Amino acid sequence: MSIADDGASLAEAVLGGSVRHTARLIRGLADGRAGAREALERLFPATGRAWTVGVTGVPGAGKSTLCNALIASWRRRGFRVGVLAIDPSSPFTGGAILGDRVRMQHHAGDEGVFVHSLATRGHLGGLSRATAAAAHVLDAAGYDRVLIETVGVGQDEVDVVRTADTTVVVLVPGLGDEVQSIKAGIMEIADVFCVNKADRPDASLLVRQLRQLAQLGGGRGAAPAVVRSVATVGEGVEELVDRVESLAAAQRGTAAHGVRRAERLRHEVVVEVAGQLRERAEALLGDASLDAVLRRERSPMSLAAELVEGLLGPL
Amino acid sequence: MSIADDGASLAEAVLGGSVRHTARLIRGLADGRAGAREALERLFPATGRAWTVGVTGVPGAGKSTLCNALIASWRRRGFRVGVLAIDPSSPFTGGAILGDRVRMQHHAGDEGVFVHSLATRGHLGGLSRATAAAAHVLDAAGYDRVLIETVGVGQDEVDVVRTADTTVVVLVPGLGDEVQSIKAGIMEIADVFCVNKADRPDASLLVRQLRQLAQLGGGRGAAPAVVRSVATVGEGVEELVDRVESLAAAQRGTAAHGVRRAERLRHEVVVEVAGQLRERAEALLGDASLDAVLRRERSPMSLAAELVEGLLGPL
Repeated sequence: MSIADDGASLAEAVLGGSVRHTARLIRGLADGRAGAREALERLFPATGRAWTVGVTGVPGAGKSTLCNALIASWRRRGFRVGVLAIDPSSPFTGGAILGDRVRMQHHAGDEGVFVHSLATRGHLGGLSRATAAAAHVLDAAGYDRVLIETVGVGQDEVDVVRTADTTVVVLVPGLGDEVQSIKAGIMEIADVFCVNKADRPDASLLVRQLRQLAQLGGGRGAAPAVVRSVATVGEGVEELVDRVESLAAAQRGTAAHGVRRAERLRHEVVVEVAGQLRERAEALLGDASLDAVLRRERSPMSLAAELVEGLLGPL
Repeated sequence: MSIADDGASLAEAVLGGSVRHTARLIRGLADGRAGAREALERLFPATGRAWTVGVTGVPGAGKSTLCNALIASWRRRGFRVGVLAIDPSSPFTGGAILGDRVRMQHHAGDEGVFVHSLATRGHLGGLSRATAAAAHVLDAAGYDRVLIETVGVGQDEVDVVRTADTTVVVLVPGLGDEVQSIKAGIMEIADVFCVNKADRPDASLLVRQLRQLAQLGGGRGAAPAVVRSVATVGEGVEELVDRVESLAAAQRGTAAHGVRRAERLRHEVVVEVAGQLRERAEALLGDASLDAVLRRERSPMSLAAELVEGLLGPL
């Protein structure tokens, strides 16, 4: 049996609920296939209904366990859940490692859960582009909640989760000073802080520190909530879901949320323009001579400026 | 006393060893000032002498302590050391948080150590661009070793440290499965694995696992070395420096290293072209109407394609 490649058939199959075509479309968009782009265009009017939740935090904080528990709780509440697992990937091999393998064990056979892993593939901004496009596909395919889980806490991950409707930042007691600095970096994107492994002795201290920080206000206006969990035994997970759901209920349809979604779409256009320009630039670079740079007679920056000028004309 | 702003004076002051002008030039390049770009152009022929060492790894692995010990060891060996601390920064405030504050306590007053913090400032690829430019400045300013330390382990950080002559990946026993996945992502960029906090019980297991992984080969040909350290008490640090220095001695001037540096400069041109194109694109986006996207009548991707086509003509 062949799988439809043209945009119209692909879009129709996704709207009809085909898991296989949904996965195919997401892969096609990541690979930049024309049929996939056409399908997205046809699907786009059906987007805007899903509530997207980003989950990020330090490695070892137990995000995977927490996300599994979140998915299970959403399923009990009757939601269909799409999951995008953002994996750290090798800049050389480009492989997605973690997501499918771990999570499909738990939700295999449940048609209400769709899991897809996305890797960076080494393109600047490629992760943001692929994630945004995949989230639109899951939205159009009728998933009520789209969970975007990142493994790392770098700028890439921040760029990804800041596009979510609600962002959960997972922390864990006792990781030392560097966590404090990371906290500062992601403070403004957090709607909810989740202190996982809260059965550890210094959990209360971390909760107290976060509540103090939260009073200074998040980047999205309201002070972030702070919840505690021990995801391995399911403790605190319902409270976390309650918190996310009450934010969703309070914000959906408000003017402030409309502004936030508009900013997100604008950001998507910026990232997409940059990505497409880069693709054009790579062809140009294929022919350029690096000799003067290798002889250290000119800098990479001045060669770049010359190439850009050749492409676009002088500033 | 005024500080020279024109390129020629700035370049001369940096070559003459002025710490203040060196800092000023790095900041000027990050801000895209014309005088700074001209100074870099004048300095560029003096680059190519420093050996750059990238240090990355999971949060909480003790990288700052290890870097302090590295710097001290290099100083004892008579090297002048330039340090670029790559900080996680808020996409909203763009602040550099960690580096100067922590490390300047240890090396304040030592004129042989220059420390500068770099933050992403929210630009796609901005971190790589700023780091590459700053490393050239420190190279021209006569620092023998340029240490590039990252806080996170995301794609951005990988992009940054892969440009170093030698890359040290710091790991720590007992951080669980997510670390394994990160390890897979950074495996190919490691020249040396450093297992820090090696007095912990499961350190030998991690060392054994890394040695097995290392036998599969790093991305740079030779199998990465694996060293153990307890940086807080100075244990293992000299061995790490020995390892880095023997790699430097063995590789400097070889054809393979020449190829690697050429690849790095080529990568810099690519990143710089992409960055400059993006700057041009932002002006263009200022006038573009998002209305159709906000009404969900068209996707951000198709609007982006139209804008790029308007700029460059059809593919």
